Amino acid sequence: MARLVLKFGGSSVADMVRIRQVALRVKREADAGHEVAVVVSAMAGVTNQLVGWVTDSCRLHDAREYDTVVSSGEQVTAGLLALALQNLGVNARSWMGWQIPVKTDSVHGKARIQDIDTKILIERFAQKQVAVVAGFQGLGPDNRVTTLGRGGSDTSAVALAAALNAERCDIFTDVDGVYTCDPRIVAKARKLAKITYEEMLEMASLGAKVLQTRSVELAMKYRVRTQVLSSFVDKPGTLVVDEDEIVEKETVSGIAYNRDEAKITIVGVPDRPGVAAAIFGPLAQSAINVDMIVQNVSADGHTDITFTVAKADLDRATAALRDVQAKLGFKALKPDPNVVKVSVIGVGMRSHAGVAQLMFKTLAEKGINIQVISTSEIKVSVLIADEYTELALRALHTAYDLDAA
Amino acid sequence: MARLVLKFGGSSVADMVRIRQVALRVKREADAGHEVAVVVSAMAGVTNQLVGWVTDSCRLHDAREYDTVVSSGEQVTAGLLALALQNLGVNARSWMGWQIPVKTDSVHGKARIQDIDTKILIERFAQKQVAVVAGFQGLGPDNRVTTLGRGGSDTSAVALAAALNAERCDIFTDVDGVYTCDPRIVAKARKLAKITYEEMLEMASLGAKVLQTRSVELAMKYRVRTQVLSSFVDKPGTLVVDEDEIVEKETVSGIAYNRDEAKITIVGVPDRPGVAAAIFGPLAQSAINVDMIVQNVSADGHTDITFTVAKADLDRATAALRDVQAKLGFKALKPDPNVVKVSVIGVGMRSHAGVAQLMFKTLAEKGINIQVISTSEIKVSVLIADEYTELALRALHTAYDLDAA
Repeated sequence: MARLVLKFGGSSVADMVRIRQVALRVKREADAGHEVAVVVSAMAGVTNQLVGWVTDSCRLHDAREYDTVVSSGEQVTAGLLALALQNLGVNARSWMGWQIPVKTDSVHGKARIQDIDTKILIERFAQKQVAVVAGFQGLGPDNRVTTLGRGGSDTSAVALAAALNAERCDIFTDVDGVYTCDPRIVAKARKLAKITYEEMLEMASLGAKVLQTRSVELAMKYRVRTQVLSSFVDKPGTLVVDEDEIVEKETVSGIAYNRDEAKITIVGVPDRPGVAAAIFGPLAQSAINVDMIVQNVSADGHTDITFTVAKADLDRATAALRDVQAKLGFKALKPDPNVVKVSVIGVGMRSHAGVAQLMFKTLAEKGINIQVISTSEIKVSVLIADEYTELALRALHTAYDLDAA
Repeated sequence: MARLVLKFGGSSVADMVRIRQVALRVKREADAGHEVAVVVSAMAGVTNQLVGWVTDSCRLHDAREYDTVVSSGEQVTAGLLALALQNLGVNARSWMGWQIPVKTDSVHGKARIQDIDTKILIERFAQKQVAVVAGFQGLGPDNRVTTLGRGGSDTSAVALAAALNAERCDIFTDVDGVYTCDPRIVAKARKLAKITYEEMLEMASLGAKVLQTRSVELAMKYRVRTQVLSSFVDKPGTLVVDEDEIVEKETVSGIAYNRDEAKITIVGVPDRPGVAAAIFGPLAQSAINVDMIVQNVSADGHTDITFTVAKADLDRATAALRDVQAKLGFKALKPDPNVVKVSVIGVGMRSHAGVAQLMFKTLAEKGINIQVISTSEIKVSVLIADEYTELALRALHTAYDLDAA
C-alpha cells in the first residue's frame, strides 16, 4: 500500500466523458489499496472564460475578487470528479483550499503555499476515502480564497504530496512524458524514463511547458518523486527524481528552446564604471526581467551591450531606454524580436568537458551565427536567429547522440 | 441614512452588460449614504448547466457534492459584481456563505438558514464598504457549503435583511411588481402598491412565481419590509408589508391560478371509519403531497372522494392507489390532469361576507362548473376545467372590481 497524489490538468477533465475516464483511472489506484489524493484543474477553457469576465468587469481588477471568481473553476471539477467516483462505487469527497486548509501567503493572484494541514485528509484515508482536492487555490491570512498563478495546480499537487509524505506525485497531462527535444520539431526525439530535478527545472524555465517551474522547485526542495504521464495513454511516463536514482547519466539529457525572448543591442555606450547599472536600473524599475547579457570589448572608450527580455516586454523596454538615452549618451538602440534561445541541458556536463565546444562546432558547421552565449553548471544556452530553430535543434540532437535508434 | 438589502436574480445578472447596470443601481444607493448589502443569484442559465453536469456525473448524486458544484454560480456573480462596483469607484467586497458565515442546518440541497453572523458586514459598513453576498448558499455544521433549494437567493436576501435589521429588502426581478392577476392573461390587471405578508404567501403558494414561498414566510416572521421591483425599469414596485401599514384594505387584493395540480376521483369507496387514512396513507408514504380534498355525501354505504396532487405526481399517485384497490374495495379511479385551481385572495375577506358567494355566482354566470372548493381565512380556491382559465380569471377580475380604470 502506498500513498499517492494524482493530478489531472484541464484537458484531462475537459468534459464529462473525460471526467469519467479520470474516475476510472483513480478507481484503479484506490482498488489496489493505495491512499489516494487527486488534485484537479478547471475544465479546459473555463479559467480563460472566468479571467475574461474579470478583466471585462474592471480594468485594474482587485486580486481578491479575481481569486474569488477564478477559483470557482477548480471547485466545480472537484465536485464533479467526486460524484463520478461515487458513481463507480468509490468513497470520495471533494475539498476546497479553505476547507483543508491549504494556507498561503496574502499575495492574491500568485500566492505561495505556506502550510497544508493534512489531518482531515489522513483521517479520511483511514476510512478508505479518496480525497479530490481543488488545485490552484488556498486560503490567505485574510480568510479569503487565494490562487497560485496560472498552472498552479501542478504546484498544489507537489505541495500536497510533500505535506502528505506521498510515495509519488503523478502529473497526468496531454503529453506522455519529457522528451529529449520537442517531438513536433525533432522526429527522432526520445521519451526519457528519468530526469533529475535540476534538469527538469532548466527544461521548465527554458520553455518546455510540461510542468510549472514553481512545482519543480518544490519537488526538488522536498524530494517529491514526480511522474509526468499521459491521461489518455496507459503507459509509464517520465520520472523526475534525485540524481542518485539515475545510474547511467547521459552527458546531455535534452535540448530545449524558447521563442519568447527578444534581443536588444545598445550601440556605442560610453565605457565607464556604473554604466551597466544605469542601463538596467530603469528596466528593473519597470519590472522587466533581463535574461542573457553580453558586453563587447571596449573600443575607443565605447562598447556595445546586448541582452534579452521577454518578447512581451520588448516595446516597454525600448521605451524605458529611449527615455534615458540622452543621459546615458549611447548612439543607437537595436531591438530584435526574431531570435530563439536554444539550450543543451544535462547534469552529466559537470563531469564531462567539451559539451559547449560540441554545440558551437555543430552550429558553425550548419552556418548558424551565435549572437549571445550563457552557461550554467548544467546547461549551455545560445541565442540565434529564429529562422534556424528547426535546423539547430535537429543538428544538436544528432550531435549529442540523442536520436532514437 | 438607512440600511438596505438589494437582491438581484439570474436574469438581472445574466451577462457583463447587465452586471454593470446592477452596479450602477447599487452605486446610487451607496452614494445616497445608505449601508448596502447586495445578494446575487447565479448568471441566468449557469445553475441549470451546473445541475446538468451533476446529474450527468452520478445518477443518485451526493447532496454535499451537488452543493459544492452548484454554489459556484453565485460565487462567480458575487466576485464580478464586486469588481464592477470597484470599477465605478465604489468600495465593495464579495462574501461567500462560509466567510460570513451564513450558518445553516445540515440538509444539503435544501438547507435552512439558522443564523447569520453580521459582525464582519457591519464592520465593513462602518468603512463605507458595500457587501456583495453570494445568495443561495451557506455553511453547514460539517464545514461544507450548503445550498438552500431552487430560488433560495430570495430567502438569503430576506434572512440577511432580518439579521441586519435592515430598513428594507428590495428584490429586483424581471417583473415590476405584484399584480392583481397575471397581466399576460388579464390585460386590465393592476400593479399593487402594497400587499400584506399573508396575501403574498398565498400568492406565492398558489403559483404566482414572484417570490420564493420560504422567503415570504421569513419576511412575515421577522417583519422584513420587502419590495418586489424591476431591475430593468426604474420605478417603485410592490411593497410586501404588515397589514397595519395598509390603510385602505381591499376586500380582494388579487386572483391567482395554478395549473400544476391534477385531480383524482376515487369512485365507490366503502364509507366506513378509517377509509380516508387508508387512502392517504400510501400517498404520504410515497412522499406525495395532497392539496384539496372533498368527500361526497354517502349513498348506499359508498362515497366518492376527490382530491388534487401535483401534476408531476399524478402517475405515481394513481399507481400507489391501484396497488391498494383490492384492500380498499373502491370501484374506480378517475385521474384528470386537465384542471386549474383559481383563487381569490385578500385579508379584507375576514371582515367582509359574501366573497365566496360572489365567486360562485360569477363562475355560474359564465357556465363554469366548480369541481372542488377549499377556503382559508384569506382565500377561496376552486378547481375548474383548465379550458376555462382565461374566461374565469377575467370574469372574476371584473366582478371583484379590480380592473384598471
